[in-house]
Amino acid sequence: MTHNTHPEETEQRILDSARRLFAEKGYEKTSIQDILNDLGLSKGGLYHHFKSKEAILDQLNADEWAVTARLLDELIKRDDMSALEKLRALIISAVDVPNHLDLVRSQLALLKDPTFFTANMRFWSTELPKSFRSLIDMGVQDGSIPTTYPEEAAQLLSLLGNYWLMPCFYPADHADMERRIRCLATMLDAIGVPVFDETLILRLGEGLADLMSEEAPASA
Amino acid sequence: MTHNTHPEETEQRILDSARRLFAEKGYEKTSIQDILNDLGLSKGGLYHHFKSKEAILDQLNADEWAVTARLLDELIKRDDMSALEKLRALIISAVDVPNHLDLVRSQLALLKDPTFFTANMRFWSTELPKSFRSLIDMGVQDGSIPTTYPEEAAQLLSLLGNYWLMPCFYPADHADMERRIRCLATMLDAIGVPVFDETLILRLGEGLADLMSEEAPASA
Repeated sequence: MTHNTHPEETEQRILDSARRLFAEKGYEKTSIQDILNDLGLSKGGLYHHFKSKEAILDQLNADEWAVTARLLDELIKRDDMSALEKLRALIISAVDVPNHLDLVRSQLALLKDPTFFTANMRFWSTELPKSFRSLIDMGVQDGSIPTTYPEEAAQLLSLLGNYWLMPCFYPADHADMERRIRCLATMLDAIGVPVFDETLILRLGEGLADLMSEEAPASA
Repeated sequence: MTHNTHPEETEQRILDSARRLFAEKGYEKTSIQDILNDLGLSKGGLYHHFKSKEAILDQLNADEWAVTARLLDELIKRDDMSALEKLRALIISAVDVPNHLDLVRSQLALLKDPTFFTANMRFWSTELPKSFRSLIDMGVQDGSIPTTYPEEAAQLLSLLGNYWLMPCFYPADHADMERRIRCLATMLDAIGVPVFDETLILRLGEGLADLMSEEAPASA
């Protein structure tokens, strides 16, 4: 298993081990040596894939994002949906795609670590809004998202969707969560981004409820 | 200077030194010994005031909050203002009280440190909303804040006011900042919290512009 015959497999094992150790011990307190011990891997075997602990952290964040980025690419190309419908599909996917929900769960435990949390907040404030922005700009063009606040809406969808809606940061029962989503819907409607219709509100509420009920075992 | 004749003065010197060192070196990389060396203080002299590095961090956060908490207490007691006017006064104070702006500036440099940033985000998501909530509940009672989302509004005022509006997290020029505040105003109006009137929008815009222009030297 220590031979580098399947480099992608080794890389995935390093990432899985690091994700688990970062969540258990915290990012700062996990050393490269801890990961090597966990996997029975040589120093060279790891550095072949990642030049530093920070590079592993970056890759974990990038993986979480990759699922959404692929979907965004597919959505942008489609010509049978309005931009507003595409934006809805992107948001639904965050709680609807089974593999993605597993990733979200593993990230939630990691987010207790300050370094990981800070890196995520930075990603959510800089890179992620660009993806929402591309769909919102398309919606301004096709008339489905009549907003004069495209950049602000993109930032808020990213910040409020990834952080404020999450019960691990803002504790909520099912009723709190539905009210929170309805509040967000009302505010986004007011700035010309009517993305949360009744269907989306209910599905997002159910998806986030799943995340709540299964959060405890995932972070144990 | 190392004698403990003025305990409050020593405590303040420790806090000032820690704030500067945390901002320069990062919280994780600053040791208690670094603070002792900086002040020419004995270990006992410091542990008399703070039992750990984390306790110093907690106190720095508490100090930032104390100015606002005192004003909140005063405002709650007044009977010549509506709850909405009190909420406006509280928000104005964040950029209008000169001493508070100095504290905000010193915090902005610190917020680059993941541990400090994470502690602040936690405070903004848990404790700070309680203060906004008390004023919003008063406003629901006196009719000046006709919202059905009191808890959500309290959380959002805290999160968006302390984080999203800040140009250190979401870069902005003067025009961006005014548009961002107007976007927030429109959204809060829509959920029955008409706190941002034209006067508040302009004063907050000016206050945050001051913070932008003086941010660079403060964090250097």
